[in-house]
Amino acid sequence: MVNPRMLQLGTNRSCIRELFEYGMRRAAELGPDKVCDFSLGNPSVPSPAGVGETICRLVRESESRALHGYTPAAGAADARAAVAADLNARYGADVQPGELFFTCGAAPALTAALSALAVEGAECLIFAPFFPEYTVFAEAAGMRPVVVPANTEDFQIRAADAAPLLSARTQAVIVNSPNNPSGVIYSEERLRELAALLEEKEREYGHPIYLIADEPYRELVYDGARVPFIPLLYADTLLCYSWSKSLSLPGERIGYVYVPRRAADGEKVFAAVAGAARAAGHVCAPSLMQHVIANCAALRPDIEAYDRNRRTLYEALCSYGYECVRPQGAFYLLIRSPKGSAQEFSDRAKAKDLLIVPCGDFGCPDYLRLGTCVSYETVLRSLPIFKELIEEA
Amino acid sequence: MVNPRMLQLGTNRSCIRELFEYGMRRAAELGPDKVCDFSLGNPSVPSPAGVGETICRLVRESESRALHGYTPAAGAADARAAVAADLNARYGADVQPGELFFTCGAAPALTAALSALAVEGAECLIFAPFFPEYTVFAEAAGMRPVVVPANTEDFQIRAADAAPLLSARTQAVIVNSPNNPSGVIYSEERLRELAALLEEKEREYGHPIYLIADEPYRELVYDGARVPFIPLLYADTLLCYSWSKSLSLPGERIGYVYVPRRAADGEKVFAAVAGAARAAGHVCAPSLMQHVIANCAALRPDIEAYDRNRRTLYEALCSYGYECVRPQGAFYLLIRSPKGSAQEFSDRAKAKDLLIVPCGDFGCPDYLRLGTCVSYETVLRSLPIFKELIEEA
Repeated sequence: MVNPRMLQLGTNRSCIRELFEYGMRRAAELGPDKVCDFSLGNPSVPSPAGVGETICRLVRESESRALHGYTPAAGAADARAAVAADLNARYGADVQPGELFFTCGAAPALTAALSALAVEGAECLIFAPFFPEYTVFAEAAGMRPVVVPANTEDFQIRAADAAPLLSARTQAVIVNSPNNPSGVIYSEERLRELAALLEEKEREYGHPIYLIADEPYRELVYDGARVPFIPLLYADTLLCYSWSKSLSLPGERIGYVYVPRRAADGEKVFAAVAGAARAAGHVCAPSLMQHVIANCAALRPDIEAYDRNRRTLYEALCSYGYECVRPQGAFYLLIRSPKGSAQEFSDRAKAKDLLIVPCGDFGCPDYLRLGTCVSYETVLRSLPIFKELIEEA
Repeated sequence: MVNPRMLQLGTNRSCIRELFEYGMRRAAELGPDKVCDFSLGNPSVPSPAGVGETICRLVRESESRALHGYTPAAGAADARAAVAADLNARYGADVQPGELFFTCGAAPALTAALSALAVEGAECLIFAPFFPEYTVFAEAAGMRPVVVPANTEDFQIRAADAAPLLSARTQAVIVNSPNNPSGVIYSEERLRELAALLEEKEREYGHPIYLIADEPYRELVYDGARVPFIPLLYADTLLCYSWSKSLSLPGERIGYVYVPRRAADGEKVFAAVAGAARAAGHVCAPSLMQHVIANCAALRPDIEAYDRNRRTLYEALCSYGYECVRPQGAFYLLIRSPKGSAQEFSDRAKAKDLLIVPCGDFGCPDYLRLGTCVSYETVLRSLPIFKELIEEA
């Protein structure tokens, strides 16, 4: 007499978590310097100093009720205003504070957005490779996930790959750029092609198709790359964001959904996002963190350490003969299994206490993901093991 | 093409929020000392000093990743251990850290518990008076809410009132004590009668019936009253808790579900709670607050101010001729509309800038709720208005 779907979701652990927990046990047995754990996307760079300073200043200077009291469900006015101002300054956008709905991180932002759009029989297109929870979230919201196969040529999205999978049932399309697990930034050109396709299909089907842009890695980009601001390219965009990666606050659960009023039925979609959040028990995003964001919205992460890991691993692994996707952002490196299935390769690596995730659940079954948000020392220790593994292959 | 149920939930504001927002506008127009706002349950007593001190100490002394990083979905080990130890010390219970699942407050604890139990056709009994969101949460989880009418004699629960409403479809029964809005603490005797009834019905129907105890007001009790620890009275209890009221942290969204392993299918229910949380986008409860709880689990609120408000309002309103329910806990006072409907009385009060909530949505249509977590000055200012209102009545 337990909900079977929820039991299954609570019992079937993700392969990422399984590997990570195995790594914790091995590190406890052998010492942490004996395990090279690339399983997770847990930021290794500390939060900018301004975050901690702001927390302590707010605690010292604020009235308890103002700092820790309920905020409106959509967020505190100062936090919403600060984020709108920051986005407008960076992208020349026209984000209004009232278009932002603060959430406990990107995951509930996505679930609220999907539930808001989940009409009877709805489908949700997901471009591979993708974060595996997208399919969980879409199904839980009552949408059928439809996967657009990965373009393993350059890991960019291609409108032509999506076209045959769109139908009158398509309510939403999820894109994630900079991408987890590939590190690729979807180019403005490719996004414009997708936008043109979706606009055409909106006219054909006579209803909006919302592009849900999941962008927790927006500020983690290298070599001066730029991430297009998708709401400027396609009107019917809902943008989901979190400060988990950019301010190294993944445990604090602070993010938002941006629902532009100029999107089709923008006001209704915003209200439905609020309703979906309410139905899931959302009251407000953590208030202290909202006030931190009000003060720190313009802080940027120090990504030098991630960049060094990225360059070191990419160059070394390529030189050993691995086929690697060159990351432009985020903190992952996607490599092709040099021989045998990705699962087999992951198992061989695991036997040498090198933990890398096979990407079947990411819609990319021949590949493996390295979470490169680790210490540089772990990177250096891993290199001879990677070399050994491909030489044995 | 927006989910109509979510749109409705996002559009139909609660009457509490409507009144509160009206009060904010009036306060801005007239000055805050011209409005007596009893609409909300937003704690007016500051957080204990230990909370702020702990936050700053943790920020100074902890590594960023340990403080702000992901915790396990169920919670950080130190927070779970501290809460188990505190409950065991206070109630002689046998709570294990692994039986606690930390959530972003009591609301998502309730939604996860309800979703975990929502099998096809399930019903959920709710004792009136009740927090109006219970029906929203039950319906969103896929359960039909069945309301047990309020016992307006003494506002205690009565097993006999529930008996005719139980059926083989009943999966859960929600009780909330100390109760919002009545302030009544359900007595051990009445809870034991309910437990006996549920045990009998479990045998009759051949499946467990879970008692969901929502207890955010557990520590807010007066005159030395004791709140029975329900898991000791009924094995199949799921306990939902939040520090919103006890540590005056309502905006911080920190709470838990306690699922005893010895409850029927305890391990499966725990896994289904985890699965339901995951489906709603739960990743972990806010990590800084989890570590605060690890250090502050034994802190108790300073309820002297609430008690003074309670005594002052109860005595004055009784002396004016109001029929009041004597609160034993929480920070509400329930009064019967002296003439006309509760809505009419609320409207008459509103015209005098005194904001009190009619309790139709709480399953108690002849009554009104005062949130007495306000300043003492507000209490004093309100008294002549209450006197005027009943004299006009």
